[in-house]
Amino acid sequence: MNVLLTGAFGRVGTAIIDHLADREEYEFTYLNRSDRQEYDTVVADVSDYDSIRPAFDDQDVVIHLAGYPEPDGSWDDILKNNIIGMYNTLEAAKDAGVSKFIFGSTNHVVGMYEVEFAPELYELDDELTVDQQSPRRPDSYYGTSKSFGEDLGRYYVENYQYPEQFYALRICSVRHEEYDHPYGDAEHGVDAEKWERGSSEYELKVARMKAMWQSRRDLAHQVDCCLQDDDVSFDVFYGVSNNDRRWFSFEHGRNVIGYDPQDNGEEWDAPPESQ
Amino acid sequence: MNVLLTGAFGRVGTAIIDHLADREEYEFTYLNRSDRQEYDTVVADVSDYDSIRPAFDDQDVVIHLAGYPEPDGSWDDILKNNIIGMYNTLEAAKDAGVSKFIFGSTNHVVGMYEVEFAPELYELDDELTVDQQSPRRPDSYYGTSKSFGEDLGRYYVENYQYPEQFYALRICSVRHEEYDHPYGDAEHGVDAEKWERGSSEYELKVARMKAMWQSRRDLAHQVDCCLQDDDVSFDVFYGVSNNDRRWFSFEHGRNVIGYDPQDNGEEWDAPPESQ
Repeated sequence: MNVLLTGAFGRVGTAIIDHLADREEYEFTYLNRSDRQEYDTVVADVSDYDSIRPAFDDQDVVIHLAGYPEPDGSWDDILKNNIIGMYNTLEAAKDAGVSKFIFGSTNHVVGMYEVEFAPELYELDDELTVDQQSPRRPDSYYGTSKSFGEDLGRYYVENYQYPEQFYALRICSVRHEEYDHPYGDAEHGVDAEKWERGSSEYELKVARMKAMWQSRRDLAHQVDCCLQDDDVSFDVFYGVSNNDRRWFSFEHGRNVIGYDPQDNGEEWDAPPESQ
Repeated sequence: MNVLLTGAFGRVGTAIIDHLADREEYEFTYLNRSDRQEYDTVVADVSDYDSIRPAFDDQDVVIHLAGYPEPDGSWDDILKNNIIGMYNTLEAAKDAGVSKFIFGSTNHVVGMYEVEFAPELYELDDELTVDQQSPRRPDSYYGTSKSFGEDLGRYYVENYQYPEQFYALRICSVRHEEYDHPYGDAEHGVDAEKWERGSSEYELKVARMKAMWQSRRDLAHQVDCCLQDDDVSFDVFYGVSNNDRRWFSFEHGRNVIGYDPQDNGEEWDAPPESQ
């Protein structure tokens, strides 16, 4: 199975590489805006159709992660990289006859539930559940653009039948390899440089991450479920580990594609002070 | 109440003008890409923020209809006029502090139900109902862009609180004034120039229009319901008359904003041959 991975070297892409690239049944091609010494890379930008189109020839699958990756994106960032970039990527997949499309969507498509219900939402006994039937409530241009990407993917599947299968993964929080746990990292997390240990902000951030974490192996396993599936034409799944505190439901993914996460944010204790 | 109407001179805009412009409580401003001799017009293009922004000062409401109006729009048409145009219009409303936003969305946000279930869907006894909880299934770039506009509007309401109220009207088929009935007109309909009378194509087209029609007075009444409402923050309503054949439900609009359509496509007989 030939698999094209766009935005290959981000947090999500590298989790896929780390856990799936060695599997015999998959032959990966990496597409990224910049290259990495250790990998053969198609250097191309999804906002430029002509630059990405050749990489789609002879692919069976595209895993589309390229785009502006955070909810702080300005309208210009999002329009170029996520809206136009999504159109270009679907067009290239259609024109090249790529049959399966796995889309890196985001929990920010429904991020306003968190804005409304935090911080109670982070507690172990909070009962709110957001699932694939919950109305979309984006919290950012970023979240709105991913919702648009889901709609556009559905249109391509149902109208053009290329791609034939489309999976939207509303990924929660995947961390860098060095910090693959809810206590985070210097860039995104709850480290002592940004948040004072023991402060209420620190405790909230930790509780949030214990709810939102998707471990790198769980993410890769979920992508693997999509790669192996033959039945879905269009569907939406939440990407989250088996966290006691989660408010996003992964039951639909378990039922439809067999997603069976191994990790639980609750299992992590705070790292020692010296770390 | 000061009301700015964008795309004022299209089929939907003129229905609003015909039925609401004389009402004492409303003071309309018309914004359109081209002017009309009989009206004072702000000539401006929603794809150009600077051209539209001054018209939003001192408005209480914007009714946003401007954009590419049909599902045949190319990506370039839709990106410029509907996606960027929607962003510009919401930004202008936010910056000017306009509190109410009525958005001309479309049934094409969920148009794939028709593609899947026609022609049985057009029959009087067909039981499919599409309502505001049905998953979105756009049938075009156009439908996808209107779905995006709904999401973006919800984001503005929930994040910026400007506008404070957002109504998405998924309008079905509003006809020109001269042809305000399900037997259509020369441009869009079931006239003898395009469809042979008595042919199966003609009968199907008539049955479809009897299901999809929203009379001009029902459309204007629905907009009036939104103008008068104080309670909605964000909601989606189908714009359709009280047609026996309809598959889009207007019950939610009846319950929430008091939409009470007067017309029914079934009441129309075929016009005489000589017409």
